[in-house]
Amino acid sequence: MYRSHDCGALRMEHIGREVTLSGWVDTSRDLGGTTFIDLRDRYGITQLVFDMEANAELCEQARKLGREYVVQAIGVVRERYNKNPNRATGDIEIDVRSLQVLNASKTPPFTIEEDTDGGEDLRMKYRYLDLRRENVQSNIIFRHRLGLETRKYLSDHAFIEVETPVLIKSTPEGARDFVVPSRMNPGQFYALPQSPQTFKQLLMVSGFDRYFQIVKCFRDEDLRADRQPEFTQIDCEMSFVTQDEILATFEGLTKHLFKSIKGIDLPDFPRMNYDEAMSKYGSDKPDTRFDMTFVELNDLVKDKGFNVFDQAELVVGICAKGIADAYSNKDLKALTEWVQRPQIGAKGLVYAKLNTDGSIKSTVGKFYTDEDIRQWAELMNAEDGDILFILSGEAEKTRKQLGELRLELGSRLGLRKADDFKPLWVVDFPLLEWDEDTERFYAMHHPFTSPKKADISRMLDGDHETMKSLRADAYDLVINGVEIGGGSIRIHDRALQAKNFKLLGFTPEEAEEQFGFLMGAFEYGAPPHGGIAFGFDRLCAVLNGQNSIRDFIAFPKNNMGRDVMIDAPGRIDDVQLSELSLRLDIKDQ
Amino acid sequence: MYRSHDCGALRMEHIGREVTLSGWVDTSRDLGGTTFIDLRDRYGITQLVFDMEANAELCEQARKLGREYVVQAIGVVRERYNKNPNRATGDIEIDVRSLQVLNASKTPPFTIEEDTDGGEDLRMKYRYLDLRRENVQSNIIFRHRLGLETRKYLSDHAFIEVETPVLIKSTPEGARDFVVPSRMNPGQFYALPQSPQTFKQLLMVSGFDRYFQIVKCFRDEDLRADRQPEFTQIDCEMSFVTQDEILATFEGLTKHLFKSIKGIDLPDFPRMNYDEAMSKYGSDKPDTRFDMTFVELNDLVKDKGFNVFDQAELVVGICAKGIADAYSNKDLKALTEWVQRPQIGAKGLVYAKLNTDGSIKSTVGKFYTDEDIRQWAELMNAEDGDILFILSGEAEKTRKQLGELRLELGSRLGLRKADDFKPLWVVDFPLLEWDEDTERFYAMHHPFTSPKKADISRMLDGDHETMKSLRADAYDLVINGVEIGGGSIRIHDRALQAKNFKLLGFTPEEAEEQFGFLMGAFEYGAPPHGGIAFGFDRLCAVLNGQNSIRDFIAFPKNNMGRDVMIDAPGRIDDVQLSELSLRLDIKDQ
Repeated sequence: MYRSHDCGALRMEHIGREVTLSGWVDTSRDLGGTTFIDLRDRYGITQLVFDMEANAELCEQARKLGREYVVQAIGVVRERYNKNPNRATGDIEIDVRSLQVLNASKTPPFTIEEDTDGGEDLRMKYRYLDLRRENVQSNIIFRHRLGLETRKYLSDHAFIEVETPVLIKSTPEGARDFVVPSRMNPGQFYALPQSPQTFKQLLMVSGFDRYFQIVKCFRDEDLRADRQPEFTQIDCEMSFVTQDEILATFEGLTKHLFKSIKGIDLPDFPRMNYDEAMSKYGSDKPDTRFDMTFVELNDLVKDKGFNVFDQAELVVGICAKGIADAYSNKDLKALTEWVQRPQIGAKGLVYAKLNTDGSIKSTVGKFYTDEDIRQWAELMNAEDGDILFILSGEAEKTRKQLGELRLELGSRLGLRKADDFKPLWVVDFPLLEWDEDTERFYAMHHPFTSPKKADISRMLDGDHETMKSLRADAYDLVINGVEIGGGSIRIHDRALQAKNFKLLGFTPEEAEEQFGFLMGAFEYGAPPHGGIAFGFDRLCAVLNGQNSIRDFIAFPKNNMGRDVMIDAPGRIDDVQLSELSLRLDIKDQ
Repeated sequence: MYRSHDCGALRMEHIGREVTLSGWVDTSRDLGGTTFIDLRDRYGITQLVFDMEANAELCEQARKLGREYVVQAIGVVRERYNKNPNRATGDIEIDVRSLQVLNASKTPPFTIEEDTDGGEDLRMKYRYLDLRRENVQSNIIFRHRLGLETRKYLSDHAFIEVETPVLIKSTPEGARDFVVPSRMNPGQFYALPQSPQTFKQLLMVSGFDRYFQIVKCFRDEDLRADRQPEFTQIDCEMSFVTQDEILATFEGLTKHLFKSIKGIDLPDFPRMNYDEAMSKYGSDKPDTRFDMTFVELNDLVKDKGFNVFDQAELVVGICAKGIADAYSNKDLKALTEWVQRPQIGAKGLVYAKLNTDGSIKSTVGKFYTDEDIRQWAELMNAEDGDILFILSGEAEKTRKQLGELRLELGSRLGLRKADDFKPLWVVDFPLLEWDEDTERFYAMHHPFTSPKKADISRMLDGDHETMKSLRADAYDLVINGVEIGGGSIRIHDRALQAKNFKLLGFTPEEAEEQFGFLMGAFEYGAPPHGGIAFGFDRLCAVLNGQNSIRDFIAFPKNNMGRDVMIDAPGRIDDVQLSELSLRLDIKDQ
């Protein structure tokens, strides 16, 4: 037996008891006559004491222990002179009688503590040491609890977890698939699922009624900072449901998670349609922790001689409250440069400062009188002390740019608090989105999403503007400006599914080849159904008020999709390649 | 709203209530004046009634509904004249007032009932219909409950579920890996994990203390009848534990699952060492639901002129109780032919029939007197009415053959009852096993398994017999002759791990290249640790007293690794291949 208790277990009530502990040497202090060692495991830290007078040999042994050594200590629990109220075991210490080194440790390449001195690359290479840091470990434990509560809630609501296959079929639609060559079927490949979408729909056809799965999904994308080639979804589907019933169910799940894990009671989630989100926040995932909503100024600003506004499709502004005194000209110049960065792409930034002394300073004073600007201010509910920021240009782009500026100002003004949670449903998404590059429509959610009933009859009009105006029974759950989940009511009728594939540019043969099994299933009594998928990694991060999903993944990959700890991917030998009927064909770079 | 209740919900207390139900037309009976429809969903079946006199139009509509149509019915709950006590809703029926077809159905290619007329191939192609059959659906729901209870038990015992990566590194050791070409790292490949073995060990190095995961694993093997290329494990690891503590923990899990899911209280599991299992049952996974254990007869049978026994390394028999009268010469001849089949491979079968009249009939009467045979019978605890079956030859092979015969007799004699559960731990496995083909030793469990402490000093003796005699801290959980789980105490010392790799024929460079990250981790304070993995698919089957794991997998693959429903694997296009820096290289078959 390696231990009678873990390092977080002992209290005053154990005083006088002989105990055996095992763990890692966290820190040690040698005070001459006495040596203290903090022994650490997942459950806590317990102080070990070695006394020179009582047992010099043992004390010498203890002095030689390095950080991160793994030791077993047998001793007697006693009360501490200087208690540590910040530690659960802070009332007691162990008077050690015998000590055994279970394993030595080289000096770690970085310090095992919250504010480590290790850089990202080093910590990823030695991820097994990085994971010893309490803050990283607690993220992973948090994730475990979130998974457990998710399964509990969904199971209590009659959902069945069903494992769907990982080795499936590649379909060119959507993002790039990872593929897996089949040795037994030469020249053929499996694909790893981007989501279990078609399988969960088939489970509805099978009558499972309510399905969920916490499941790994895969996308071979060029990785941005916060994307991973493998990621985890809470994937759900329900039969005989309306959109309202789905939203109610998963609002219930989200509230349960906040309550059970964070102790937070969330009020009912507001709903906002896509058009409102875009026109008020310039985003389909608005951060509603703060207002600063868009006000359109087209009617007020035209025909005053300011060419930029006159030619703009949209002139739109936000009001930043009470910052006129704090923001110098230099600050405002810096902000202008910020919106002009290529990532944002605005040509310039118009602002009007409503000084607390009643004066107005604006970048467009040449064209607009103070009275003009007072009119804007009134429309924007602005008062003295505020600054109005205005962007103009092509409507869609301008809204996105102003949305970015809004978030930036929200951050700078401390309006995006990590412990403030503002969920909302964004609903009534467009069915289709036009892609300029490939000159075709893509499904905004995915090709299985049902158009709204009222829009079905308009689906084959074919003219561009009608197509853009089609709305879907699709919805996203957004918290604090982050899309946590998204879903839709699905098509369950073969003819409508075929029509939708046609809109998306599939020939009937392509549709049959790729999704014939699903359309076939629709002919044997498919029930009305719909569902949702949550990004589990992101949900973990958002509930913690953090941004990076990587901190909630035990063994993440870097931006080149590499696991630098195990050094993957790597070469495979020629025999293996030949068994797979493959040859390498590496072009010169 | 599609329904106010599901099809299993309504009882006498609902009489008079107007309800809305949705589901599938299971059966319909047209009695002229009245039409009955059984409406089905996952939760049950409710009888709908349509009356010609009350509403002829509605009744006509109902008559036209085909099997598996999806309908919504609104009506009033009323008491049935002929109650059906076998159905939870059997006291009531719905007097339907309005009916809506939600989706039509073509005639299914096989009947949706327990004894379907559909063959395996057809059912797999239309798996979404096969999954509508109550017995198949209940298997999948059973699996869900087993997963839920597993997670509950392990979480309650301080285990943390941690997701390990699916895209890892290929290692030539063990079975063949599935590989995934990396687009971003041309010429390089990920591998899909055969198990999260190294990652769970790293989590122990990280101090997670207790880890589990219900996780998909992958093996590119030539598929036998009951293997799947992707399968699910309950994967577990613990730190600072002895073998006894691991066995106690997972015996606890197994008992919990039997109790919570089957209502069965299992007594403590016996333990048997590997040598005893092999010598008494000819198998490292003995079915202990029945005795019929091996008795070695070498000392009694030699030097009586029977050449076959004289030259045999081992002469060993089993006693089949009370079948002498029932088994004719013809039966015994058939049994002899059974052991001679190539799958078993025995040269012949010696038997001695102890007739109930006191006479003896044996195939070797020419060499052995009745008195000789009475001596065997005494050693084998046989009585009149029993038959002794004896095999001989090379010891290891003969034991395996007799083990097969024992199981076959057990089945024929009805001794292997589906509702009788006899778990046991098989312990003290050999560390290494010799492979005749490649003329080298392989790890019997895997290369990370710790030899028993007493055997470590003998590890480098190098002579063949010593190597074969090394024992490992490895154990299997066996239930009813099926290996449910297996595990070991792991090596946590770099030098010992290196030594073990050397025994297994790795050069130091190969060991470093493939497992350097793990050996490196052992240098930074790796705790003593060990674990176990359960085959989740198999556990589902065994708890149900069934043999085939395929019945517990929602979307299984066939023996060629194909999913015939979605038709995977399949071709990918040349652009995709080129992006992956690959070319097909298909040899003529």
